[in-house]
Amino acid sequence: MAFDDLELPSGNERDVIGGAATYASYAASVFAPVRIVAVVGDDFPEATLEAMRARGIDTEGVERAHGKTFRWAGRYDADLIHRTTLDTQLNVFASFRPKLPASYRDTQLVLLGNIHPALQLDVLEQVRAPRLVVADTMNFWIKGEPAALGALLKRIDILIINDEEARLLSGVHNIRKAAKEILSRGPKRLVIKRGEHGALLFDEEGVFAAPGFPLEDEVDPTGAGDSFAGGFLGYLAGQSEIGPLAFRRAMLHGTATASYCVEAVGTKRVGSLSRSDVTARVNAIRALYEFGASSM
Amino acid sequence: MAFDDLELPSGNERDVIGGAATYASYAASVFAPVRIVAVVGDDFPEATLEAMRARGIDTEGVERAHGKTFRWAGRYDADLIHRTTLDTQLNVFASFRPKLPASYRDTQLVLLGNIHPALQLDVLEQVRAPRLVVADTMNFWIKGEPAALGALLKRIDILIINDEEARLLSGVHNIRKAAKEILSRGPKRLVIKRGEHGALLFDEEGVFAAPGFPLEDEVDPTGAGDSFAGGFLGYLAGQSEIGPLAFRRAMLHGTATASYCVEAVGTKRVGSLSRSDVTARVNAIRALYEFGASSM
Repeated sequence: MAFDDLELPSGNERDVIGGAATYASYAASVFAPVRIVAVVGDDFPEATLEAMRARGIDTEGVERAHGKTFRWAGRYDADLIHRTTLDTQLNVFASFRPKLPASYRDTQLVLLGNIHPALQLDVLEQVRAPRLVVADTMNFWIKGEPAALGALLKRIDILIINDEEARLLSGVHNIRKAAKEILSRGPKRLVIKRGEHGALLFDEEGVFAAPGFPLEDEVDPTGAGDSFAGGFLGYLAGQSEIGPLAFRRAMLHGTATASYCVEAVGTKRVGSLSRSDVTARVNAIRALYEFGASSM
Repeated sequence: MAFDDLELPSGNERDVIGGAATYASYAASVFAPVRIVAVVGDDFPEATLEAMRARGIDTEGVERAHGKTFRWAGRYDADLIHRTTLDTQLNVFASFRPKLPASYRDTQLVLLGNIHPALQLDVLEQVRAPRLVVADTMNFWIKGEPAALGALLKRIDILIINDEEARLLSGVHNIRKAAKEILSRGPKRLVIKRGEHGALLFDEEGVFAAPGFPLEDEVDPTGAGDSFAGGFLGYLAGQSEIGPLAFRRAMLHGTATASYCVEAVGTKRVGSLSRSDVTARVNAIRALYEFGASSM
């Protein structure tokens, strides 16, 4: 969980509540009860945790440490695609060792956020018998912690990364070959996020493409990828059977949830979504590639 | 029509037969008889024109002028996305004024390649009663000839450009708003090409997304956009009714044709495609976003 200072084309925003766990939890809470594990400092507003609980997010796993909350500052280009990190202050996150409350140990679906792969493995050890484990990672760990990341890959069901990360991790530029290489290292499925262009799912059944939804109002892409992961896993949490069909539907629900996230600053939109909002957007995305009358 | 000198990740290729008219004609010839209008110099091989005729392309409109054929030299980055123009020699193209043979005047479907918009209009004047007019353009004309381009837009049915060009032409970054603005200037439909990410069709019926096909072997993207336009219009030429459904199917056929183009240097692959090759790729693209058993 974090404070973000954002320089957006629409203006500057300070002290925006952010962080991957925040975005993913809000997104998943549209579909299912959520349990969050994170750290905040003394300065983090209790009202935010209260608001999360009101959305069905169990915040028992949010540790309040002495010191300041993690802070990120970034500047987006006019295209909202490229961004520059202006400042990162780890603060209480620097010494964070995630500890699951006892009540979390029976969690069935686990999303391992983007932290040191050894810590991701440590979190996984604390879950008794997960049905599905999804992990995110980033260039920093791909380059700096290949061994720990390799061990993690053998333990997860799905890796969710972007196309640049997939190329770096696999050492292959071609995205189809990169996917094949990554799947050979452990995960049964790979999701490659491509920003405004949607996302690809690679698995034994083949490739599935969820197109990006062309938005009228793009405001703030911060947290869109985390909202995708939250929406993806939240949707699956509500399914009795988690098979190829459910994963394909989850791709559209993740894409839909992420598209809403971009429409407002911070978690403003993704934190107030209803299930019917997401269903409407999923239908609009499906209409993007339907033929004839149904797409009119 | 052109000679291209290409620096590709797979190696350098000199004197590759290229040019928008060449790629688009080969692509369209998979579906329907084609008439090409272009200029070549003394140095252009008659064997290429013979090969085109063997594919059902009428080359009566190819003018052979004294001098050298247009030549382009470019270098592709390892990602095959970014490219740098190293050299452009207009040669006989500099004084080219397209003249349609009398036998071409009854042409029903017209693709106006990327030349000065005043010349595009001039070509259009030479066609008696076209059913469908499609045009391409580029940054150079958008910036340098806005009045002539504005006049052209009022006379065409479909504009096919890439996302950068759409943003420049409309003055709007958001792609949906950019499309709305461009459609207000004349064309009934707008196709926005997005390279490996496929293409979007905007019209009164809404938005249609043709996803890019993730290829195992990307070799040379030169001419892919022209192959898309040729495949798109060629497919339509074979349809008895050209309505929203046909346009949507044409998007997939254009994408499929373009995807083959990228698999080999120059026109090698797009110049030897069969209709069943394209159908197979269209099915593979549709499988990208199908659910359940049919996508396995």
